Amino acid sequence: MKQLKEISQDGSFQRQKNRFTTPFSNESGLPIEPGRYRLLWSPACPWAHRAVIVRELLGLDTVISLGTASPMRPNIDRVDWEFSLDEDCIDPVLNVRYISELYLNSDPSFSGRPTVPAVVDLTTKRVVNNDYFNLTNYFETVWSPYHKENAPNLYPEHLQKQINELNDTIFHDVNNGVYQCGFAHSQEAYEQAYDKLFARLDQLNQHLEKNRFLLGDYITDADIRLYTTLVRFDAAYYTAFNTNKHLIREYKNLWGYARDLYQTAGFGNTTDFDAIKKHYHLSITINPDHAKPNILPKGPDLCAWNERPERDILSKLPSKFLYKEPT
Amino acid sequence: MKQLKEISQDGSFQRQKNRFTTPFSNESGLPIEPGRYRLLWSPACPWAHRAVIVRELLGLDTVISLGTASPMRPNIDRVDWEFSLDEDCIDPVLNVRYISELYLNSDPSFSGRPTVPAVVDLTTKRVVNNDYFNLTNYFETVWSPYHKENAPNLYPEHLQKQINELNDTIFHDVNNGVYQCGFAHSQEAYEQAYDKLFARLDQLNQHLEKNRFLLGDYITDADIRLYTTLVRFDAAYYTAFNTNKHLIREYKNLWGYARDLYQTAGFGNTTDFDAIKKHYHLSITINPDHAKPNILPKGPDLCAWNERPERDILSKLPSKFLYKEPT
Repeated sequence: MKQLKEISQDGSFQRQKNRFTTPFSNESGLPIEPGRYRLLWSPACPWAHRAVIVRELLGLDTVISLGTASPMRPNIDRVDWEFSLDEDCIDPVLNVRYISELYLNSDPSFSGRPTVPAVVDLTTKRVVNNDYFNLTNYFETVWSPYHKENAPNLYPEHLQKQINELNDTIFHDVNNGVYQCGFAHSQEAYEQAYDKLFARLDQLNQHLEKNRFLLGDYITDADIRLYTTLVRFDAAYYTAFNTNKHLIREYKNLWGYARDLYQTAGFGNTTDFDAIKKHYHLSITINPDHAKPNILPKGPDLCAWNERPERDILSKLPSKFLYKEPT
Repeated sequence: MKQLKEISQDGSFQRQKNRFTTPFSNESGLPIEPGRYRLLWSPACPWAHRAVIVRELLGLDTVISLGTASPMRPNIDRVDWEFSLDEDCIDPVLNVRYISELYLNSDPSFSGRPTVPAVVDLTTKRVVNNDYFNLTNYFETVWSPYHKENAPNLYPEHLQKQINELNDTIFHDVNNGVYQCGFAHSQEAYEQAYDKLFARLDQLNQHLEKNRFLLGDYITDADIRLYTTLVRFDAAYYTAFNTNKHLIREYKNLWGYARDLYQTAGFGNTTDFDAIKKHYHLSITINPDHAKPNILPKGPDLCAWNERPERDILSKLPSKFLYKEPT
């Protein structure tokens, strides 16, 4: 078996480091300027989805444009993202076919896996930031001059330490945990990731028994990060990544919580189950040993996502959002 | 893509006909004789499992011996059943390694897929019957002189017409329906089988709302046939065969019913989840396009099979079985 770049000796999946992590600021070379950047995503990808949800919740869609890559890899030999949903398979703003072209514009020696989210500077056509771990926090803080009126406060200062700790846990055990199950190349590495994932889901399910959201009454950045994995779980990971102890819809509180978010503007309307299913079940994964299957599973039944979660009784106040004080 | 023997032009799976269908009778050449036959099965296989359950329920284990093949195919090029659980990989009674050898003893030109259940005549070492559709009915009728004392009546005369009709429906829509999903080579054929399967499961779930078993208060041959698919569903078919609309444990009545049977002697003790998981997830299927995956899914959580189903209130009488009148 060919040794893959992101598979370590013990068969575990070690996600590559993000290549472009310069923070947004007027001093860093990534100034906060409306109309200057284009955010590239694919609706399949949970790491990009979080940035798209935050962009929409904060009203940054009027100042940062969005380019959408297909959920399908171009072919088995090319682990890339392609603008095949656009006319002539070309992004109409950047005039490229593959996201890798924009990575190579930034670094001609780039040999990693081109990933989304990728923020491209339209003045140079270079990827300037692909730092999914911090991107939503930039949107929530330094980009605040361009937030819409009454934008929610997803990352309030007094909760930032707690949110950061939660985000770290959710990343290791859940967001990346499912990939560690799905991309493991040894039974032992897979089972370790599986146990870690389900122990954390059990704990989160318990926590959400009395908390409407992770930090209480209001949606924060941490909820967005948990959501993007939960919403893909039953439709993709359970089968494609062998995370098959329980479905999310079998956890009373996680399931109500996930639906509560899904039914909130910015979440459900940016969730594309068709793209998610196509990517994980039909497209090419990081593992070239998987032959390409030709059948798209018809299930699961997704109707239940629209059933009312009845979790508002857990909140003291009617709104799901903490709004910012007017300045 | 290589055209496979059991895949038709439209991509649908067409199961091969059984090759050896001579009925058991003293006139047919397959006399009802204790100690003359060996039943071959693998715990993975639902078609063989039904024969093993009936053999045990009726006490035929003292007159028909049992040979057990591994759930793992010998290798990717050999769709066969191997006695690799036995010492030196040899069945101690028949002295063969592969079940195909016994098929070839019967018909040197046999070129089909060697299947279980297979009944072998020990006097000739030939497969004399592999007719899974009728085998349990032979055990239940012409083999009755060798039933144990107080053996249940799984195929009472006054219900045979109803049982036969049910068995036919269950075969097409459920038992073979899951294979038609899993082995389909076209999206359309897969979706047709999927719709047929879940329509039938919905109807059966509804029927079992007020009936403890399919025909009412007592377990019959039809229940055994439905059980062997239900018990494999969540652990294997849901993921390996893309039958992922709902899990069986999500159907209130089917799930209680399946546990009621599982907790009945003859069912649970002949159900080997480990073999089932290994076969469907790791072993070679009929589809050589599937690369062999190397990870055995750890889930689902099987503990719940031992939870009490609380379905006895649906029966008028305490026993699950209709016992035969003493003759």
